[in-house]
Amino acid sequence: MTEDAYAQLRKELADLHQVLVEAALVVWTAGNVSARTGDGHFLIKPSGVPYDALTPEAMVLCDLDGRPVGDGLKPSSDVFAHAYVYRHRPDVGGVVHTHSAYATAWAARDEPIPCVLTAMADEFGGEIPVGPFALIGGADIGKGVVDTLAGHRSPAVLMRNHGVFTIGGAPRSAVKAAVMCEDVARTVHLSRQLGEPLPMEQSHVDALYDRYQNAYGQ
Amino acid sequence: MTEDAYAQLRKELADLHQVLVEAALVVWTAGNVSARTGDGHFLIKPSGVPYDALTPEAMVLCDLDGRPVGDGLKPSSDVFAHAYVYRHRPDVGGVVHTHSAYATAWAARDEPIPCVLTAMADEFGGEIPVGPFALIGGADIGKGVVDTLAGHRSPAVLMRNHGVFTIGGAPRSAVKAAVMCEDVARTVHLSRQLGEPLPMEQSHVDALYDRYQNAYGQ
Amino acid sequence: MTEDAYAQLRKELADLHQVLVEAALVVWTAGNVSARTGDGHFLIKPSGVPYDALTPEAMVLCDLDGRPVGDGLKPSSDVFAHAYVYRHRPDVGGVVHTHSAYATAWAARDEPIPCVLTAMADEFGGEIPVGPFALIGGADIGKGVVDTLAGHRSPAVLMRNHGVFTIGGAPRSAVKAAVMCEDVARTVHLSRQLGEPLPMEQSHVDALYDRYQNAYGQ
Amino acid sequence: MTEDAYAQLRKELADLHQVLVEAALVVWTAGNVSARTGDGHFLIKPSGVPYDALTPEAMVLCDLDGRPVGDGLKPSSDVFAHAYVYRHRPDVGGVVHTHSAYATAWAARDEPIPCVLTAMADEFGGEIPVGPFALIGGADIGKGVVDTLAGHRSPAVLMRNHGVFTIGGAPRSAVKAAVMCEDVARTVHLSRQLGEPLPMEQSHVDALYDRYQNAYGQ
Repeated sequence: MTEDAYAQLRKELADLHQVLVEAALVVWTAGNVSARTGDGHFLIKPSGVPYDALTPEAMVLCDLDGRPVGDGLKPSSDVFAHAYVYRHRPDVGGVVHTHSAYATAWAARDEPIPCVLTAMADEFGGEIPVGPFALIGGADIGKGVVDTLAGHRSPAVLMRNHGVFTIGGAPRSAVKAAVMCEDVARTVHLSRQLGEPLPMEQSHVDALYDRYQNAYGQ
Repeated sequence: MTEDAYAQLRKELADLHQVLVEAALVVWTAGNVSARTGDGHFLIKPSGVPYDALTPEAMVLCDLDGRPVGDGLKPSSDVFAHAYVYRHRPDVGGVVHTHSAYATAWAARDEPIPCVLTAMADEFGGEIPVGPFALIGGADIGKGVVDTLAGHRSPAVLMRNHGVFTIGGAPRSAVKAAVMCEDVARTVHLSRQLGEPLPMEQSHVDALYDRYQNAYGQ
Repeated sequence: MTEDAYAQLRKELADLHQVLVEAALVVWTAGNVSARTGDGHFLIKPSGVPYDALTPEAMVLCDLDGRPVGDGLKPSSDVFAHAYVYRHRPDVGGVVHTHSAYATAWAARDEPIPCVLTAMADEFGGEIPVGPFALIGGADIGKGVVDTLAGHRSPAVLMRNHGVFTIGGAPRSAVKAAVMCEDVARTVHLSRQLGEPLPMEQSHVDALYDRYQNAYGQ
Repeated sequence: MTEDAYAQLRKELADLHQVLVEAALVVWTAGNVSARTGDGHFLIKPSGVPYDALTPEAMVLCDLDGRPVGDGLKPSSDVFAHAYVYRHRPDVGGVVHTHSAYATAWAARDEPIPCVLTAMADEFGGEIPVGPFALIGGADIGKGVVDTLAGHRSPAVLMRNHGVFTIGGAPRSAVKAAVMCEDVARTVHLSRQLGEPLPMEQSHVDALYDRYQNAYGQ
């Protein structure tokens, strides 16, 4: 990758963290975005740095084992989870982690979000599943993310008692999945508070997912 | 229509999308406004374009069958629903679609919002009804909107498992209905969480609706 | 009153409407503030004017029967309620009306907000009561407000199926009561969702109210 | 302390109040931050002053009995609670008090927030406990805060029917604890609304707390 391409990716990554802040998916320093580079590495948020201090230069370059490359800040403590995803999912260009409130509320109950909205069928193609409980710091979280998503169309997974991980072909797609995940987590939560949302037919879910993935947008 | 009138309508339409954003009725690219032109067409949001990139020029001109006219971006995938409404409701000058959370929570349960607030009587003249489930892409959603609203004073309809459509004599009135719909959906939801809101007498609803529609404002 | 004093009061009134907007107590045009003048009149929001178009000059001067004085816009349709309060409560210098969501949710159930928070004891000195249902346009709402508040320390009353009215010695105090009313309506609502908030002893409520009214502030 | 160090601490304290406002933990004038000085005093918010009028100079210097030193505004009516904490906890450099809604909702039920989220284990090392009811104005609140926190790792305590107090080695750490307290209070509340969040094993809580306190950040 050229220096220009690196600079652009660092800026995009900094900007995407602001999207998380504006969408109210993160508080203080809890939540991070990473982006795969074109040369076998990835960039990720530094550990414990507040969002309003996140410059493009602050982003930490790591190899696919999660080890920082060169000088710079310490990477997010979720770095090994991100690295695991990049190693095992070559189609993934971006990973997002948040503790967004409604999605995490489902995760704390170990309960997947059922697909009862057309917007869920569009983006997630079915339920948003729950992955296992795992401690931070090793490969366990990353393995839980990859193994759980393997059985689903969803680019989002709720990690038990913890929060949300989303993936995308590009970092911006992973951020979109994080935003939509919290939005549907909230709407289905609200609907369930006063009764039972109606289920959707699988053929409708399939049709909506197919159209949204293939015909939507420019 | 003169070029100036077109430019003004395009700008109004872009501004009204910002009103949806500021009122937190939409996330990412989900939600759209359209406006009937003075010469048998309508303008609508392009598909999949983020709200902060929505310039007046980006709005897509379509005929009443929902087909784009001239060059430009691809219209919203809801274009056929808007087109159906304009064909069958000559009184309608603007249409809005959102997935606003509280209203969509009622829609997912297939449950109309009962008229238990003076503000609902004012703007909606009774309950906000639920329309049928329908897939995106053909005339079904538009037909569901028009048929359901035919039996109600309400300018808003909740489409099952989907979201909200609102209509108005002018685009701004449709946006107002979308804002008020989410506001009353939320207040009645909150009230129902801890008990049963008291019903209102039909004669009171009628009196409030009549005054608000005919005497309110400048 | 001098022209300068009038100009200052008009500006204060316009600014206080922005406080309602920033505190998210109002949407679109629903909600208003009025201020008693020094010469037997009051100023009030014009009917149906959006908050971002509310200039100081737009405020409407009315006599104590609620009739506009001189040229200018049509006053809020709640003008007779405000006028009734000013006629019957010479101690009141400002009146606020909102449909803020949590408070209105209690109002729709005809249920007073119990005093279970020190912040409620401070500002309201006990429960926030509910007044009767009344139609807009005559003296009924104003009479409901005045009669209900007569038996309480609270500067806020929830009008059944409608919304909130608050009063204050000055317009800013009435706005403060409206902000605090929604805040405690929300907190007690949240507390009740998962159980029963503990009652407070009357002697504690009395002590807190006394201190806050007499010793708090500069 | 030099005049420069004082000026810097006053500015930091004013800025931290804005953090409370931006995180929506406080309304009107309810909520305050204090900061221990390097010479046996502390600075605290003045009583009843709105957040947008809080200049660095407005902060009130007090001795460790809570008595203002020199000229200036009257200190927060919570001054004696802050003073008690500083006298009995030499490790504490900052104290925060709020009525943030979700946390106060737990406090009103006299119910601690159970540790069911990794983010809670990280910051609080276990449950967030509830302290006793106490009237404002003497040592009771401060004693309740100190005694309750003595038995917990948590830097946050919910005071019954009242609100939240948090402590930190530095004022910014106490503000962080206040922000995280409301965030987890909300997420666990949401989770409980639709069922029971799963408990976490004590060994996991211990491991997460240890890592976050010792390895997280730069």
